Amino acid sequence: MTQKVDTKFKREPKRGSHDFKLACDMLDAGKICHVGFTLDEQPYVVPMAYARMGDQLLIHGSIASRLVKNLAAGLRCCVTVTHFDGLVYARSTFNSSMNYRSVMVFGVAHVISDTDEKRRCIQALVDHLMPGRRADLRMSTIKELNATSMLALPIETFSTKCRTGPPSDSKSDMNARVWAGVVPLRLNAGEPIDAPDMIPGIKRPDYL
Amino acid sequence: MTQKVDTKFKREPKRGSHDFKLACDMLDAGKICHVGFTLDEQPYVVPMAYARMGDQLLIHGSIASRLVKNLAAGLRCCVTVTHFDGLVYARSTFNSSMNYRSVMVFGVAHVISDTDEKRRCIQALVDHLMPGRRADLRMSTIKELNATSMLALPIETFSTKCRTGPPSDSKSDMNARVWAGVVPLRLNAGEPIDAPDMIPGIKRPDYL
Repeated sequence: MTQKVDTKFKREPKRGSHDFKLACDMLDAGKICHVGFTLDEQPYVVPMAYARMGDQLLIHGSIASRLVKNLAAGLRCCVTVTHFDGLVYARSTFNSSMNYRSVMVFGVAHVISDTDEKRRCIQALVDHLMPGRRADLRMSTIKELNATSMLALPIETFSTKCRTGPPSDSKSDMNARVWAGVVPLRLNAGEPIDAPDMIPGIKRPDYL
Repeated sequence: MTQKVDTKFKREPKRGSHDFKLACDMLDAGKICHVGFTLDEQPYVVPMAYARMGDQLLIHGSIASRLVKNLAAGLRCCVTVTHFDGLVYARSTFNSSMNYRSVMVFGVAHVISDTDEKRRCIQALVDHLMPGRRADLRMSTIKELNATSMLALPIETFSTKCRTGPPSDSKSDMNARVWAGVVPLRLNAGEPIDAPDMIPGIKRPDYL
């Protein structure tokens, strides 16, 4: 299975790596991934929440979801997580670029069917997506667990790619009288919005 | 070609649409997309910069890029743009969710080879990715144009999906004494970082 995936870096090989620790860092820093799969020769790319648990990437969804049903049936996928870190203003259009970190994980996911293991996976997802939240929520019911498929993709065949730092301009452009640099970008959390139907007297928790 | 793509909404159909204007709004609000394609039965999902020009989605890259070469050769793709708008803190794990807007465009891209049209596409990309920047940069050389492939994917077969608003909890959870609401998320630009090798006396432009 592994040998079928071509994870060699054709373009900008200095930006690429197959380092597991680096891949984990990039995965742990994100909350949504893009899952790619192909049905009847048509690729689909679907955004999903995810979490890493050790050397597995967890994604979950309704048992009725097309993506989940097909991945559970052994359909090959690619899961990509990208951090869009900045716009790189070079002195030419050609060298203008973006700073980013991205990791692609390739393979076949397996279904977590054991109830206890499924609960552990759900905990990992909640802890990753909403740190601190878990202690506030009731346990999932068996009905809820049965309505959810949990998929684990081994972080085994993967590659990372990243660009950081200032623009790389051609020597011939270095005298251009134009600003050059980077505009950093970051996904920031805003002020929490209370649900309109909140019971009076409930305060915002510290973990927000 | 169109009939092969299944863009029906199986899950949460109320969140889905095939409205062109809505798709354009979502596309115009983003700067990076995830391009999905399949080679030897292995899907790949690659982050790319993009811009919309009318009813075409433009992506570009080095003529040496695997993605670009294969798409230019007529390989079917799916281009997805996602805005991760917030974390939805429901009163149960099961109803916890995310607010997002996403658009998927399906099809086969074609290569823009005419030099004038290619220049117009590059202008559209710069205007979208770095508004205001274009007037400051020299024209692309023929050598630069020749090193770049410009691909246009018709925004013809597509679907959008979005979730907005507060959590949707089960009636049985409404008395739980737990905070519920949304933490909005937004990609923000930070303070620009000057290139270390800048010519003295150049100020930051207003468009940053």
